[in-house]
Amino acid sequence: VGATRVTLRLDFDSERRLGPGKIALLEAIGRKGSISAGGREFGMSYRRAWLLVDALNHMFKEPLVETRGGGKDGGGADLTVLGQEIVALYRELEDKTKHSAAADIKTLEELLAPNQG
Amino acid sequence: VGATRVTLRLDFDSERRLGPGKIALLEAIGRKGSISAGGREFGMSYRRAWLLVDALNHMFKEPLVETRGGGKDGGGADLTVLGQEIVALYRELEDKTKHSAAADIKTLEELLAPNQG
Repeated sequence: VGATRVTLRLDFDSERRLGPGKIALLEAIGRKGSISAGGREFGMSYRRAWLLVDALNHMFKEPLVETRGGGKDGGGADLTVLGQEIVALYRELEDKTKHSAAADIKTLEELLAPNQG
Repeated sequence: VGATRVTLRLDFDSERRLGPGKIALLEAIGRKGSISAGGREFGMSYRRAWLLVDALNHMFKEPLVETRGGGKDGGGADLTVLGQEIVALYRELEDKTKHSAAADIKTLEELLAPNQG
């Protein structure tokens, strides 16, 4: 496979979706130890990041992100064990897809117009 | 796998992307025999549909959609052989992913919160 990036979106039902945006936000929160700092990596407002985290925290049996210290606006945040598990599962799924799709992606790449860039 | 819908997006490079929206538009154009009627299935303006088709027609070595008859606004449109091939490849890729991902998706489904809907 050349430079093609494969991303996966899972629609569990009409309300609950998991895709590259939410997963990248979870990873950034884990890395930064903060919802606001995690969201800032993608130019997201704190409100937007917090709404996504709130949706993620109600999507699964247990929350994926836990806050500590000064409550909603202060303190920090971390991924829970389930949060880490969900991120790992999604990334594993993406890797498997990239591998199982390699031949088809190569076919598609060979059909692309020569890049004029 | 339960009701989870898996969708794939391919980013060939920073300019060229192929995902469920463009594929569904191609399928609708093939079904309807018209760019405007195809786009209308998704509430798309003719301009929006035409811009997507134009991008798709320059993405690969040959166009995916050909118009016939009265030019850009009149007449009809059809998928080319390459257009049909790209749609089939993408759908095949999606099916393969759904199969290879089935176990991981089942794990994720089992971790979902009970649906309150």
